[in-house]
Amino acid sequence: MMERLLKNIAPWLTGDGPEAEIVFSSRLRLARNLEGHNFSRRLTPDLRRRLAGEIEDGVRRAEAVRDPLVFRLEEVEPLDRLFLLERHLISRELSPEGQGGVMVGGGEVVSLMINEEDHIRVQVIRSGLSLEQAWEEIDRVDSRLERVLPFATADDLGYLTACPSNVGTGMRASVMMHLPGLVLQRQIGKIIQALGKLGLAARGLYGEGSPASGNIFQVSNQATLGKSEREIVCDLDRIVKKIIVHERTSRRQLLDRRPLKLEDQIFRARSILGQARLITSEEAIGLLSLLRMGVDLGILEAIPRRTLNQIFIQSQPAHLQKLAGSALTPEKRDALRARLIRERLAQTRKEEGKNV
Amino acid sequence: MMERLLKNIAPWLTGDGPEAEIVFSSRLRLARNLEGHNFSRRLTPDLRRRLAGEIEDGVRRAEAVRDPLVFRLEEVEPLDRLFLLERHLISRELSPEGQGGVMVGGGEVVSLMINEEDHIRVQVIRSGLSLEQAWEEIDRVDSRLERVLPFATADDLGYLTACPSNVGTGMRASVMMHLPGLVLQRQIGKIIQALGKLGLAARGLYGEGSPASGNIFQVSNQATLGKSEREIVCDLDRIVKKIIVHERTSRRQLLDRRPLKLEDQIFRARSILGQARLITSEEAIGLLSLLRMGVDLGILEAIPRRTLNQIFIQSQPAHLQKLAGSALTPEKRDALRARLIRERLAQTRKEEGKNV
Repeated sequence: MMERLLKNIAPWLTGDGPEAEIVFSSRLRLARNLEGHNFSRRLTPDLRRRLAGEIEDGVRRAEAVRDPLVFRLEEVEPLDRLFLLERHLISRELSPEGQGGVMVGGGEVVSLMINEEDHIRVQVIRSGLSLEQAWEEIDRVDSRLERVLPFATADDLGYLTACPSNVGTGMRASVMMHLPGLVLQRQIGKIIQALGKLGLAARGLYGEGSPASGNIFQVSNQATLGKSEREIVCDLDRIVKKIIVHERTSRRQLLDRRPLKLEDQIFRARSILGQARLITSEEAIGLLSLLRMGVDLGILEAIPRRTLNQIFIQSQPAHLQKLAGSALTPEKRDALRARLIRERLAQTRKEEGKNV
Repeated sequence: MMERLLKNIAPWLTGDGPEAEIVFSSRLRLARNLEGHNFSRRLTPDLRRRLAGEIEDGVRRAEAVRDPLVFRLEEVEPLDRLFLLERHLISRELSPEGQGGVMVGGGEVVSLMINEEDHIRVQVIRSGLSLEQAWEEIDRVDSRLERVLPFATADDLGYLTACPSNVGTGMRASVMMHLPGLVLQRQIGKIIQALGKLGLAARGLYGEGSPASGNIFQVSNQATLGKSEREIVCDLDRIVKKIIVHERTSRRQLLDRRPLKLEDQIFRARSILGQARLITSEEAIGLLSLLRMGVDLGILEAIPRRTLNQIFIQSQPAHLQKLAGSALTPEKRDALRARLIRERLAQTRKEEGKNV
């Protein structure tokens, strides 16, 4: 079942969509809980299992998630769990001990976690800066669910959630951005500070507390109360566009002020990615970030964004091991990652050669 | 005049000669002083100048150095002085303030410093492990000089020298070795310790106190007294051959134990050298060392040792600036060095392509 996912590049990583040069993807999630049940963490394992069954059933009846793959974490190998995490289909908090599960819609655009912090967390993820589109999609899913599953609400608050920080709309909107210019120009700290004042947060690749590997940041709203869903989406969209302008300015400044230094970093990144025999995922992601910026700036020959994104997601530890078909030691992983990256880049160069 | 040197690769860097894979060059030097004169440092500048004139004259009359270029440091630009130092034709101690000079024989095999610590220091340098041959050559030069210039000696001691550590034969024999295997296997410390017990020293590329950049070591005798010149040469030759065996063993172990790690380092070195836009001389020499080992081990396609040696010497700061024809800022130097290395390696690959 996992193989169906493995074979495809996640559609939100196709590299299409508005502002795809700087914005990998836009993501919305809604937190929902069923009326008449305690929050998941306060249920016994048996009751959680029963609840999960009810939700799965409801989702199917509502036809809320198209053609879903269902993964119950109690039945999922640790490696597969990591795989789903790398693919942003589950969160770190979703656990086998909590009888967590996920239903993944065709194309991985819509997915639905069960028994995370809340009974249900619906997610829609799209390539590029597409918050508006994502909002229409998740609103549709939510409306279908609501017809079948009675959600817990309070008139004066909106949707009730396990953590008070999600009460209200229960919505988090987040945009994954590639900001190497701001990092190299040491402007990112200022930006993150400014975002805080606007009620937004910038986190690393895998959410709260994770490092900003590969100069990738997730920018998201903090407040879920006091604004409508459309306002949350609009505000985030507006601010992301401002960050994009700053990122472009930083890149231009890098090019103007120390072009050789920048070219040096970019050519080194490409050459190491093309030649290394061992590479950690941390190093790979950092070099891929430089490679991507080099392509964006026209310093390097074009490499399709789709290919870069694919390398990026497939060089993660669980993806690699799934590709290999077995668990691997760290050194073997580093060797396979190096080979995968080398071959993909060589292939790109060959295909390019043909087009000339 | 300096241009004549610049155009040629130093013949001791042709990469020929016995054991040239691990031994860059063999070098002998004799310290000599003229009877009836104070040591150079105890003379006034005028007397030193007059002495230098006498010595130059004597060397010509004796026909001891073939077709010599004469450089008087008082007339030499600082950049040219650094150039001669990088070329191992003068020592750091030879200074304009000390009215130092050097006479360089055709092919740079024989050279003769004037007014260094001693009145005269004759040097013979040869490619590969060629101590015996170097000894015959320097002995011939010494004999010719001796017919014309009266050397200070004491019956019970041999040749008198400014520093007691050189009294006796006045000879230092040294061998420049490339020992990346011993460095990577962390065996080099033990080797250096053992050499100390045998009355030998291992120093960095530019002599005492200089770091062992590029895994290059100069192994030389410490004692000049109590052994004949032939014994010094024989002992050093024997021990160098043992170090070569250890180096080969270390390389084999590296290949056996962590082949991927070694290959990774070597391929990265080649790719960075082939792609960097800025490179310091310290980094370049370290990467060239790995490249060279990669060629020696057959991990990389053959690159003529001559080419590697040429890149190695020409990427030094003064050589670069002489090539550019003017003084350069450090960043410009790093850029030119990167370009030079890139172009030479690309050229090699092209020439190789033709041969296939």
